[in-house]
Amino acid sequence: MQNTLLWISYDGTAYSGFQIQANAPTIQEEIEKALAVVYKQPLRINGAGRTDAGVHARGQAANFIAPFKIEPDKLPHALNSLLPNAIVITGAEEVAEGFHARFDAVGKKYSYTIDRALHPQVLWRLYSWHQPDPFDSEALKVAAGLFIGEHNFAAFQAAGSTVTDTIRTLNQVEPILKPAEQLLTLCFEGSGFLYHMVRLITGTLVRVAKGELEPAQVDLALRGLDKNAVGPTMPARGLCLEQVIYQLQSDKRTIKKG
Amino acid sequence: MQNTLLWISYDGTAYSGFQIQANAPTIQEEIEKALAVVYKQPLRINGAGRTDAGVHARGQAANFIAPFKIEPDKLPHALNSLLPNAIVITGAEEVAEGFHARFDAVGKKYSYTIDRALHPQVLWRLYSWHQPDPFDSEALKVAAGLFIGEHNFAAFQAAGSTVTDTIRTLNQVEPILKPAEQLLTLCFEGSGFLYHMVRLITGTLVRVAKGELEPAQVDLALRGLDKNAVGPTMPARGLCLEQVIYQLQSDKRTIKKG
Repeated sequence: MQNTLLWISYDGTAYSGFQIQANAPTIQEEIEKALAVVYKQPLRINGAGRTDAGVHARGQAANFIAPFKIEPDKLPHALNSLLPNAIVITGAEEVAEGFHARFDAVGKKYSYTIDRALHPQVLWRLYSWHQPDPFDSEALKVAAGLFIGEHNFAAFQAAGSTVTDTIRTLNQVEPILKPAEQLLTLCFEGSGFLYHMVRLITGTLVRVAKGELEPAQVDLALRGLDKNAVGPTMPARGLCLEQVIYQLQSDKRTIKKG
Repeated sequence: MQNTLLWISYDGTAYSGFQIQANAPTIQEEIEKALAVVYKQPLRINGAGRTDAGVHARGQAANFIAPFKIEPDKLPHALNSLLPNAIVITGAEEVAEGFHARFDAVGKKYSYTIDRALHPQVLWRLYSWHQPDPFDSEALKVAAGLFIGEHNFAAFQAAGSTVTDTIRTLNQVEPILKPAEQLLTLCFEGSGFLYHMVRLITGTLVRVAKGELEPAQVDLALRGLDKNAVGPTMPARGLCLEQVIYQLQSDKRTIKKG
């Protein structure tokens, strides 16, 4: 028995999300199919979290209990040779017996990419949302800063969500403008995220940047006092799960990106 | 009658190249279909040059003679609303009566992108070639410099090519390493390019970088003295036509990227 953590990247365009489901292509299903070939028996992986249909990942994580030992360094190549090109295992490492990719995650990083060119940049169309309207970068920055810290993000989750503990801490909400590439990337890092939270915050920030919302209204929304200042939910294609964060538990169990 | 120049970008992944052909999807066909809707009659465009199946473009150019005048600034939006998402018109401008996108081009810029990450970067897989082997960047740079200037590139064209004037001038052959993105982009600018020339030069430079060829052998190849030091032809997906270059003929007819 060997508990193994996989680092996973994928282009989510053609998939119905990470988590396995009947009658729809998922990232989890493809990885479990590849693992079944390598280990010659069906295996189940524990993803660090779901991603929606069309959402991408550069640093998704999942663990699985293997029936016998394979050198972790050999796993990425073995699995990548079996996986579709849209899914790439970038690393694998042995982890402690009780480690669970979801329960042991202490944080996540996401990015949301906005294409700021006048006409859509065609090689970015699957990985960004095109938004060429004039942007007030200063207002965007101010409003982004309001989300940093511990807040009740109840207003910033998908309608109908049943999660009741909606307190989360964001350590980073930062717009990074790359003028040469005409791309604006919003970087998020936090202890945890509610369903659609990144896409709702991004939608809110885009409205601020376009002058449709004042940062003061965002402040009210964050205190649950103005529901009209929330969203819209930005499209999936601009969103990317950049990294799942784990705490170092010992020198031996060091989690690093592959 | 109005002679109009279009600036065209496309993701070539799903297309059999730029130039129209029977029973295969091409960029030219899609643009002519969109123009036929806008102008309510079939129109033919003159591309600045062909690109092969799977090759991308950020700055392809084509002109066409329109039967009536449409404000050029309105054309990109009108055409983009009709085109598949993989093709985007980034600019349009009125040009002199006799202007021809191919015959009046005085140069072109291409890029070839190599993914240097250990495992393929999944969001770059359609727009780069994965080459994780150790690279000698200095040797690559030296060899790249050998191609700059006027040379007989007879050895650097596709086998079976019937072009006899094989003298071309390259003003730029420059490897640009982006360490943060783990990408190496080879930038080419020249008066003209033979069929497969960029892909053959890139293949040659990759062999130099991997230590399989000495820059001195490349020098021999350039003088037609060592055919074994040429190529291989790199895959289409890493290649992108960045820009077609025109000479300014008057203050009025200024060609600029949209």
